[in-house]
Amino acid sequence: MSLTHFTHAGEAQMVDVGGKAVTRRRAVAEGWIRMEAATLALIERGGHGKGDVLGIARIAGIMGAKRTADLVPLCHPLSLTRVAIDLTLRPEDLAVHCRATVETNSQTGVEMEALCAVQVSLLTIYDMCKAVDRGMTMTDIRLVEKAGGKSGHWRLGGQT
Amino acid sequence: MSLTHFTHAGEAQMVDVGGKAVTRRRAVAEGWIRMEAATLALIERGGHGKGDVLGIARIAGIMGAKRTADLVPLCHPLSLTRVAIDLTLRPEDLAVHCRATVETNSQTGVEMEALCAVQVSLLTIYDMCKAVDRGMTMTDIRLVEKAGGKSGHWRLGGQT
Amino acid sequence: MSLTHFTHAGEAQMVDVGGKAVTRRRAVAEGWIRMEAATLALIERGGHGKGDVLGIARIAGIMGAKRTADLVPLCHPLSLTRVAIDLTLRPEDLAVHCRATVETNSQTGVEMEALCAVQVSLLTIYDMCKAVDRGMTMTDIRLVEKAGGKSGHWRLGGQT
Amino acid sequence: MSLTHFTHAGEAQMVDVGGKAVTRRRAVAEGWIRMEAATLALIERGGHGKGDVLGIARIAGIMGAKRTADLVPLCHPLSLTRVAIDLTLRPEDLAVHCRATVETNSQTGVEMEALCAVQVSLLTIYDMCKAVDRGMTMTDIRLVEKAGGKSGHWRLGGQT
Amino acid sequence: MSLTHFTHAGEAQMVDVGGKAVTRRRAVAEGWIRMEAATLALIERGGHGKGDVLGIARIAGIMGAKRTADLVPLCHPLSLTRVAIDLTLRPEDLAVHCRATVETNSQTGVEMEALCAVQVSLLTIYDMCKAVDRGMTMTDIRLVEKAGGKSGHWRLGGQT
Amino acid sequence: MSLTHFTHAGEAQMVDVGGKAVTRRRAVAEGWIRMEAATLALIERGGHGKGDVLGIARIAGIMGAKRTADLVPLCHPLSLTRVAIDLTLRPEDLAVHCRATVETNSQTGVEMEALCAVQVSLLTIYDMCKAVDRGMTMTDIRLVEKAGGKSGHWRLGGQT
Repeated sequence: MSLTHFTHAGEAQMVDVGGKAVTRRRAVAEGWIRMEAATLALIERGGHGKGDVLGIARIAGIMGAKRTADLVPLCHPLSLTRVAIDLTLRPEDLAVHCRATVETNSQTGVEMEALCAVQVSLLTIYDMCKAVDRGMTMTDIRLVEKAGGKSGHWRLGGQT
Repeated sequence: MSLTHFTHAGEAQMVDVGGKAVTRRRAVAEGWIRMEAATLALIERGGHGKGDVLGIARIAGIMGAKRTADLVPLCHPLSLTRVAIDLTLRPEDLAVHCRATVETNSQTGVEMEALCAVQVSLLTIYDMCKAVDRGMTMTDIRLVEKAGGKSGHWRLGGQT
Repeated sequence: MSLTHFTHAGEAQMVDVGGKAVTRRRAVAEGWIRMEAATLALIERGGHGKGDVLGIARIAGIMGAKRTADLVPLCHPLSLTRVAIDLTLRPEDLAVHCRATVETNSQTGVEMEALCAVQVSLLTIYDMCKAVDRGMTMTDIRLVEKAGGKSGHWRLGGQT
Repeated sequence: MSLTHFTHAGEAQMVDVGGKAVTRRRAVAEGWIRMEAATLALIERGGHGKGDVLGIARIAGIMGAKRTADLVPLCHPLSLTRVAIDLTLRPEDLAVHCRATVETNSQTGVEMEALCAVQVSLLTIYDMCKAVDRGMTMTDIRLVEKAGGKSGHWRLGGQT
Repeated sequence: MSLTHFTHAGEAQMVDVGGKAVTRRRAVAEGWIRMEAATLALIERGGHGKGDVLGIARIAGIMGAKRTADLVPLCHPLSLTRVAIDLTLRPEDLAVHCRATVETNSQTGVEMEALCAVQVSLLTIYDMCKAVDRGMTMTDIRLVEKAGGKSGHWRLGGQT
Repeated sequence: MSLTHFTHAGEAQMVDVGGKAVTRRRAVAEGWIRMEAATLALIERGGHGKGDVLGIARIAGIMGAKRTADLVPLCHPLSLTRVAIDLTLRPEDLAVHCRATVETNSQTGVEMEALCAVQVSLLTIYDMCKAVDRGMTMTDIRLVEKAGGKSGHWRLGGQT
């Protein structure tokens, strides 16, 4: 087993995907930002017209997906055909849950774009709430599903 | 209590920091990426010249700190005077730990830059290892310390 | 009278502002996007939770202000201390009005940042409504006010 | 009638174009910047080797087209196969006219790229002339023509 | 003979590649940075775990390839399928040699991406060593090979 | 002697400049692009209104200076107060000479910005002429002068 991003000599490269098929690919990622109850209540009120934290985090996540190849050194630059971000208040967890779905017709997958979208959405929530709650934690950011391409359908907790 | 990034009408804004003092400010953030033991072993071997995952993640994190204001909608664009990233293998946690320190002489703090550096470092580790371990999880990304500026010194788990 | 962005030989340059004082500077710009009544009605409904066109345009404008020096070749890169965007439905004009206020503590002014914020806000409204109204027109984009710096206070329609 | 950039719940998304055909698509947009006669005369002289305002605005517009997806939150990132910018002095209107043509082979159109190119070209003219004429106005920025894709050929003032 | 990036009227344009075939294309470029023997020795020691100058320059070059269309005004934005950077110490020349290989499946070639990768790699070496050797020189940066597309296979010093 | 961009453990960092004085700093860099006589003649004709290669390269260089910290991993992001690019035809050398001057009021110098401006200017000339001359070579890119800051005035070929 070895890391594909390195040559035998241990030198990093953007791996060759030129021989892979252009297929429809989808990736889904998720993550949470945990916070105090009072902070969550402020975000919830925002949803009622007092400052739409989740709406802004959603936009930031979509834009973040587009910047992935600028941020992650060995990522291939790709066209994206769809980006959707779901943000849900989870009072029982004292958290906001973020789920990003990214699709492409491409020679390589969009896992990194989905994960990057989640991270930027969560960072944006942190930014807007940090004045009232510096201890918020972004956590359990992970891939949930990956479809398309030779490696087939992958799902967190069990290969389909 | 309300969110400073919104006007009374609930409209988002980049808040006015024009009246704040230019002072030396520092922020420290941290996070983990959890993985399988075999993946951690591959990263460790890389440190011995077979593909330096942590070295690349460090560079990505430093560059990520510089892109914060491009990614987080209401962040102020800032000059940074220092960025350092520490990445440590934590076999006992089956994780890599990332700690980012960012400094500026500015009218506002660099918490977002430190958190963004951690996110991009962890994301880069995910990218380089994803072919062997899709289930890696980025977790407990949070501010550790903040110094400088009117709000004083803040430390995770207790105000100094 | 000649253009300051060119040398005597007619060569473009980013003009020297190194000798100018760092002062607090503000610029205000405005513009309109004209559309069909039905389109304006759709945007208005969005304000009631059905898709917040103006909220997204506001974020895009704020982020656009930060990209000004990337877009306008001879603009100086600057730190910004405040960006605010006001978007108002103007049913009597069949238009949305955009007003951007940008501030800095810097050696040069932020007129371009304010105009760029207006442009990007209006462009974003166009993008979100184009499927129902391709004929929308962005118009009367101009500087409204400029304060700070040696040239003093300027106001559209009359020097203060 | 509703806005395609939002889900039924009113949440913004980058709409799915994965099922659309890759076809050759073209968009043409235009706009004006109105100014004082003396300013127009300065630009005209530049064309004769004293500082080529229009040449620089043309380059800025072409580069601006490439940045569209970075600026407009819900725009799809696209490859472009052609960008051309025509800038014409219109002394009878005390204006410079800008016309941008953008082409792609893609799953979605390039209207936003054409409009963005016009805006950045006009902003760049403003920037280079603002020291002599702060009251310049950018106006009547609109789509002129759109070809390719399922929606067929659209032309300002009458469907072909 | 004339320059394809200009219209008959001498106006710059991003040339139309919409009619060209999507084919697999490759470009190879190279360059050198010359320095003092002591500087080269410092870089060599870094390869043994004291600061990996070449590893960082390699990452910077790969990321630089992805930014080409942002930097070079008339370059087409492209997807890249592979980027590899080889950096070799050349004590006999008192230099580091850089060779970049870039590939795409596209309607136009990637010479500019390969050259840009070389430049950014060399610039990054300069940056990391400048405190000890300001007189380093980047030199002989040129295309080595170009394959794919209508113009066929080109090789420095003789058409294949 | 050691490299300041690395810690004692050999880990890269953006070095701390927070304790350095804000002073006026200037850097000058230069470079050449060598080409066939016929190519040089085409560029020269462009200066007479048939396609202004040097004018576009100048703009690209100025914009390139502003992107330096995006490209060079360990560079500090800086405000720039002046950027000027001189491009001169050198028929006796079958070359175009580029000289970039960059200034700032900052805590660190602008050598990298000046070198990056030269690189991007030369790269842009290559791009516009490559269809007629693939063998052009960019060469002797180096720092010429550096002023301001604690290290004093440095000049190529002899400390002042």
